[in-house]
This record gives sequence, C-alpha cells and structure tokens, in this order.
Amino acid sequence: MYIEGRNQVVEAIKHETTINKLFIDKNFATRKDEIISLAHKNHIRIDFLPKKVLDGMSITSHHQGYIAETIDFEYSTIDDILEVAQKREHDPFVVLLDGIVDPHNFGAIIRTCECAGVDGIIIPSIRACQVNETVVRTSTGAIANMKIARVTNLKEAVDELKEKGLWIYVCETGGEDIYKQNLTGPIALLVGSEGFGVKQSLRTYCDGIITLPLKGTVNSLNASVATAISVYEVLRQREHK
Amino acid sequence: MYIEGRNQVVEAIKHETTINKLFIDKNFATRKDEIISLAHKNHIRIDFLPKKVLDGMSITSHHQGYIAETIDFEYSTIDDILEVAQKREHDPFVVLLDGIVDPHNFGAIIRTCECAGVDGIIIPSIRACQVNETVVRTSTGAIANMKIARVTNLKEAVDELKEKGLWIYVCETGGEDIYKQNLTGPIALLVGSEGFGVKQSLRTYCDGIITLPLKGTVNSLNASVATAISVYEVLRQREHK
Repeated sequence: MYIEGRNQVVEAIKHETTINKLFIDKNFATRKDEIISLAHKNHIRIDFLPKKVLDGMSITSHHQGYIAETIDFEYSTIDDILEVAQKREHDPFVVLLDGIVDPHNFGAIIRTCECAGVDGIIIPSIRACQVNETVVRTSTGAIANMKIARVTNLKEAVDELKEKGLWIYVCETGGEDIYKQNLTGPIALLVGSEGFGVKQSLRTYCDGIITLPLKGTVNSLNASVATAISVYEVLRQREHK
Repeated sequence: MYIEGRNQVVEAIKHETTINKLFIDKNFATRKDEIISLAHKNHIRIDFLPKKVLDGMSITSHHQGYIAETIDFEYSTIDDILEVAQKREHDPFVVLLDGIVDPHNFGAIIRTCECAGVDGIIIPSIRACQVNETVVRTSTGAIANMKIARVTNLKEAVDELKEKGLWIYVCETGGEDIYKQNLTGPIALLVGSEGFGVKQSLRTYCDGIITLPLKGTVNSLNASVATAISVYEVLRQREHK
C-alpha cells in the first residue's frame, strides 16, 4: 500500500507503520527535512526519484513529493510472545535484539529462531532494522510463524521480562563460557548490534553475560551466526541435559 | 592479475587458477563457447563487456575477447590440513563442503570455521563456489588463517580422511540427533549444497548422518547457519564433555 503526502508520511513513521521504502522527489534530496532524518533513524530506505516517476506511482495525485510504501506486517506485544510459550507448554524462550541494522542479519535471525522454537523476538523501534521486504525475504517464510514485538525502550522490556520470571543473558565476548552456564528455565537472550554489541547500561542490568569460545585469530562471529549457535545451545540444554 | 587470450584463459580454468571474474567480448555472449560452459561449471562470474572496454583493460593488447581476473590465493592439500592439526596438537577437525554455490555462504562458513578452530576446509573443484573476491570479503579476513583444499573427487577425499583415522559425519536432515552423537576424536563434517544436500552416493559412504532439531514450520536452516551450529557442537563436545 502507498501512503502519500508529507504529513501522512510523517504520521505513518511516527505511528510505527511498517514502511518498506520511502520515495522522495529527488529535488528534495539536499533539503534539511524532518522526514529524511526520521527515516534514517528508523533505518528506512529512501529512493530519491524524479517528480515524474512519483506522479506515475501516485494514486491520489497529491503526493507532494513523498510516498511511503508499507508492507503487511503486524507487530505483537510482549504478552503475545509469552502467550505463545504458554500455549506450547514450555518455559518462555525469547530473543531481544539491541540494534541489529542489517536486514539480512535480522531475517536470518528470524529464520533460525523459528527453527529453534523461540517464542518471539523483541526489537527497539528506533535505531534498528525494522521488518521490511528484505527481512521478510531473508527469513524465507519464517516470519509468518514468529511473533515480533517492537518496544520504545529495551530496558523496560527487560524489566517486564524479569518481572515475569525470565532470566536475561547477554550474548557477548568477555563473559562466562556459554557451555558452563545453565540456560534451562524461562530465558531471554539479548544480542547486540553488529558493530557495537549491547549498550553498557543494558549489559550491567542483565543476569549474566555468556560467551562463545573463539579459537582463531578473527575476533568475532557474524551477529546472526553467533545468535544461531547461542539459541541452539539453549535448545540443547532444554532438551538434552 | 589479468590472463589474456582465449587459450590462456581456457588453460587457466583447467589448471584451477583462482579466477575471480571473467571478462568476455559481449559480441560473443550468444556463442556456443567452451569457455562459457567451463566458467558456468566452475561458478566463475562472467561480465560481457564491449570490445572497447576490453581493449582498455588489456595490457598485452592480445586479449582476443577474453580476459580472466585472477586473485592471489593458494589452495592447500589434505596433507597440509592434517599437518595443521598436528601442529595444534589436537585430533584433526575438518569440514568438507559438497557443492556450496553461494559465495556469501562459503565466506561465512570460512569465518565460522576459523573461529571454531577447524583445521581446514575441503571443496570440490567443479560445481561449487571457488575462492573469489566475494568469498574473501565475506570471510572478513578469516581466509588468511584457514587452509582450503580443492579436490576433483570428494569421495576420494573421504577415503583419504578415513584412512588417516577420521570419522566422517554428514550434516543433514533425517539422521541421528546431533546432540546424542559422540563427536569427539578425529572428525570431518560433510555439509551439502544449499538446494540439494549431500549426494546420495557420498552420504551412504560416510560413518553417520547427524541432524539438528527443527522445532518450527520452516523446514531448514540456512547452510552456513547449520554448519556453524554443527561445528560449534563438535567444539563443545571436544572441550566441555
């Protein structure tokens, strides 16, 4: 679906509509524009196109140089996710992502989590990749079977999960060997962004840091690979300990 | 480095020089040409360019419409890989790839294997992605620390590894639960291609099939993710059992 017109597009972004791509009149590319900075903050891709192309796309013909392409995806709440765990009659198993920006990584994580029986994924609503077409494609259909909740504040989400009895572990270097940590019971894994890991304020707030062994000279695994290995270690401990 | 001229390029491909890309005169694009089918078989990317562009690239000015761009990478032998294990004073840990065609998957597997302390990777010299620029880039430097052997026949490679005392396990669906299998000792994991898995003739020839649990409705993990989880399970059993 297309959302057309300046104010309509701003409202759509602010109300966290799932926007796949933004089309803006290329004459506006150099403008200092709230929409452009909003889009950057939310990791929405922008295509600057000639006005003629926008005219051709427009249905209302009142696009004012701004058209947002939305996709059909509905975010869930944390409660929705915990309800899934209840229905599956097992301890909740949640993954929190602190600022993953690459849609391929995000899509790959959704696919792996679905395979491992994770109940849901929680992402922040700003400064992180949102669900877009690339994410949907990379997840190879898994997204249809995975609850994704979007929160304005990850720390509050952690609080809520703690209150509900979950243990929160940060997946990062410098912590305890993942294979020595007991990961059974209600659990949430907190995974950091590709470049910067988990924010310091959030890290110290969690119940522990778990670390994958690294035997080589390359100092880190890809974010989606590290998440996959950690998520499957939880699954192993739950089912095979 | 550039290799120029029809026969030179054919010889380079046949002698398994590490070719990153092939540039061919775009007027030859529709020709039935041995080079083109050879390149396809070896998953070498072809750019069809105007003759003028090739003239500009050419150093010898005798390109005859064919220029191959090579990259600086030297393949190892199986013995080189086993020597690494000996130096590291542990049981050999090898990964065999049966026809991975996506350079991003290949590069990601190299990166993960390096992190997990795998001694080397064995790939077939045809019908599989070879080391190219995308592979090098995706491996984020890990390739410099990883032996990669290229063999004409994977079955013969399996034979050689068996003779040297390694146990060969196929990573695929329909086998024994990976978490119930003892994966300590000298080991090689055989991973299939993205679409077709491991060839039947090869599968029955190995010591066992190990399978990751799948809890969702999506029926498979990404090839590089599945390899990562399996490789780390071997590492876990080696060091934490």
